[in-house]
Order: sequence, then structure tokens, then C-alpha cells
Amino acid sequence: MKLFSFWRSLATYRVRIALNLKGITVDEVIDVNLMKGEQREAKFRAINPMMAIPALIDGDGPVLFESLAIIEYLDETYPNPPLLPRDPRARARVRGLSQIVACDSHPLVVPRVREYIAHEFKADEAGVMKWAQHWHKLALTALEQNLSTSKETGTYCHGEQVTMADICIASQAAGANFFKVDLARYPTLARIAANCAKIDAFVRAHPLRQPGAPAAA
Amino acid sequence: MKLFSFWRSLATYRVRIALNLKGITVDEVIDVNLMKGEQREAKFRAINPMMAIPALIDGDGPVLFESLAIIEYLDETYPNPPLLPRDPRARARVRGLSQIVACDSHPLVVPRVREYIAHEFKADEAGVMKWAQHWHKLALTALEQNLSTSKETGTYCHGEQVTMADICIASQAAGANFFKVDLARYPTLARIAANCAKIDAFVRAHPLRQPGAPAAA
Repeated sequence: MKLFSFWRSLATYRVRIALNLKGITVDEVIDVNLMKGEQREAKFRAINPMMAIPALIDGDGPVLFESLAIIEYLDETYPNPPLLPRDPRARARVRGLSQIVACDSHPLVVPRVREYIAHEFKADEAGVMKWAQHWHKLALTALEQNLSTSKETGTYCHGEQVTMADICIASQAAGANFFKVDLARYPTLARIAANCAKIDAFVRAHPLRQPGAPAAA
Repeated sequence: MKLFSFWRSLATYRVRIALNLKGITVDEVIDVNLMKGEQREAKFRAINPMMAIPALIDGDGPVLFESLAIIEYLDETYPNPPLLPRDPRARARVRGLSQIVACDSHPLVVPRVREYIAHEFKADEAGVMKWAQHWHKLALTALEQNLSTSKETGTYCHGEQVTMADICIASQAAGANFFKVDLARYPTLARIAANCAKIDAFVRAHPLRQPGAPAAA
């Protein structure tokens, strides 16, 4: 397998966690430096025309793209340990929580969007930070409300097994750290993120543990 | 089943198409007027703390949320006709195409985001329109590139069967219409959207066919 990655990419972080949980060794990690705009170069556009990472190539297959699609692919091809429960309602909850992160929150704070508001709307650094914090907090509030009131919530988002939702919570917590959002107001989510942070598969996948990462972000 | 809906919501349009394709009759459609901000009222926050539609309640189950999670739930509980292919690589492609719409494009143009840039960045109507068109075009370009070069593309996004990706393409095409983006530059996608527009399940689900919709948008 070949993974197109960048240390700071929260979406790639999600896929790295899944790979680690499944015990899959990636043969080649190809760095796409989002800060230098390498995702917009012709070479990478040929890999993923959305100009986004992660992208994953498994054997001679076509390029896989979008983090949640890749995670579900890994779950279907390497079923153990499962990253989704078996019951359809439980799967819908895990997917829904995951999509609050991957649809409603994270896409608003990726580099291309922060660049647009800085250039087109002349948002300064504080304005960009406020923007990122706003969308983070909106999703964190919704996630906390669900997690703190659902009887399904356990050690992890859905009971006692790690699921795709926990992978997404970990990426949301890492994003909160990047954008200086205090998780103390979201105690259930913070507890689950802390539980995930004890798991080696999460630790090894963390953005700040990847090549090129600064000592702290 | 109870569906929380609004005529203009592209995410709810996606779920309505899936319901129609499956032949599922919704017992109650509850209108959440996004233009009046009803999604932010306490009554609806108790249903979906993300303050977004669609939300679906099936029997006595907890509320289902996020359009793609709901569609996969419907696909798992009402398997015919299937909305995902069986092969894992094919499923990953269909989910990936769907997520270009539902993660990378649509979340950037929903009312709460358009309101934020109008209020916080003082974007005028033309600025909001330019913003919406920008993210639409970025996704349309990526989708067209994939659809026009993949040997898997057929009458629909993935071969000869309607999938979740076609549902998402239909919502992207409706959004392009709302935001005055010409689909002529995306001929493969436009062809697929036109093929979908011939199917009764898509026609009946269209935003402009819902109660409260204007004669044209």
C-alpha cells in the first residue's frame, strides 16, 4: 500500500489510526506538503483531482480517496478488529458522529478554506483563528450533546470497542489543539479522546509524531 | 418514519431520493424552515444538536442524522435496490465520490456558513455567490476528472446501477442551479445528472417539487 500523507493533515491522521488498528503496514508513505501547496501540483492532481489528502493505493487498484471512504474500505477488506458495530442503528450513529467531524467541521478549516478567507475576505490571523474555532466549537457542542446523553456511549463513543467515530473524535481533538479550543467544556468527548490517546495505534498515528512535524503545534 | 426536512436542503434531497428509490413511505414530514432559523430553536436542537437537517426517526429508534449515514442505514435495512456496489473497491469509489459532495463541497455553502461570511467578513451578495461558486466548481472539477477518466463510469457514476454517488451528483447539480454554476464545463457529470433526472424517484424528491418551494430558484 502507498499512502499520500502530510504530518498536519487531520484526515490522513484518521486513516493512519485505522491502518494501525488493523495492523496494516504501508509500504510507502509519500509526503504531500500542504504548506508548500504540493497538493495543487500536476503530479498530485493526477493522483487525486480533489487536491486533498489522504489518498491510498492498494496494490494495482485505482486511487482511493476521502478519509471515511478509505476507512470503510479498510474495514471491509481487513475486518479485524471491526471499526463499525454490526447493528444498523449503531452503525448509523457511528457514521453520523464521524460525519459531524468529517463533513460539518473539518472541511471548513482545511488549508484551502483558510487561504480563501485570508485572501478574499482579508481575514487576519485572528479572524482565521476565530473562524476555525467557531466551526470546531459548533461540532464539539453537537458531539458532546450526543455523547453525554446517549446510553450507547461507553469507554468509547459507542460502547467498549473503538470505532470509526473514535478515530474522528481523535482528529477533532487534535484539531482543537491546533486551533486552541479548550476541550474542558466538552467533558465526555475529552474523556473519550483521552481514552483513545492511551492506545498505541492512536499514539503512533498522531500528527506530531510524523516526519516533518514540529516539536509542538 | 419521521423526516425532518426543508424544501431547499440539498442534504435532505439526498435522503428523499434514497427513500423514493427504496419505495419507503415516510409517515410524517416535519418542516424545519432553514430560512427562518428554525434549525437553531430549542425544539429542533433536542432532535439534532448539530442544528442541521435531515434527521430521520425510524420507529422508536434514536434520531438518525447526517445524510450519508442515513442513506447507508436505509441501504442496510431496506437492501433493494442496493445503493452501493458489492466489491470493496467499487464501494470505496462510490463513497469517495459521495464524500466529495457531502464533505468537500456542500458543507461550505450551507446557510450557517453563508451567514457567517456575510456577517463576520461583510461579504455582500456577490461575495457570497462567488464563495459558493468557488467550492462548487472545485468539487465539480474533481468529480468530472474522476468520472470522465474511470472505466467504471457508465450510464451512472458507477456502471449501470444507480448508487449513492448518483444521489450526491443530483444534489450537486441542484446546488449548481441554485448558485448559477453552468454544468456545461462538466459534461460527464451533466450527462449523469440528466440520466438521474429521468428517474421518477429523483424527480419527486427534487427541492423545487417540495411544499414551500418557489416556482423556480
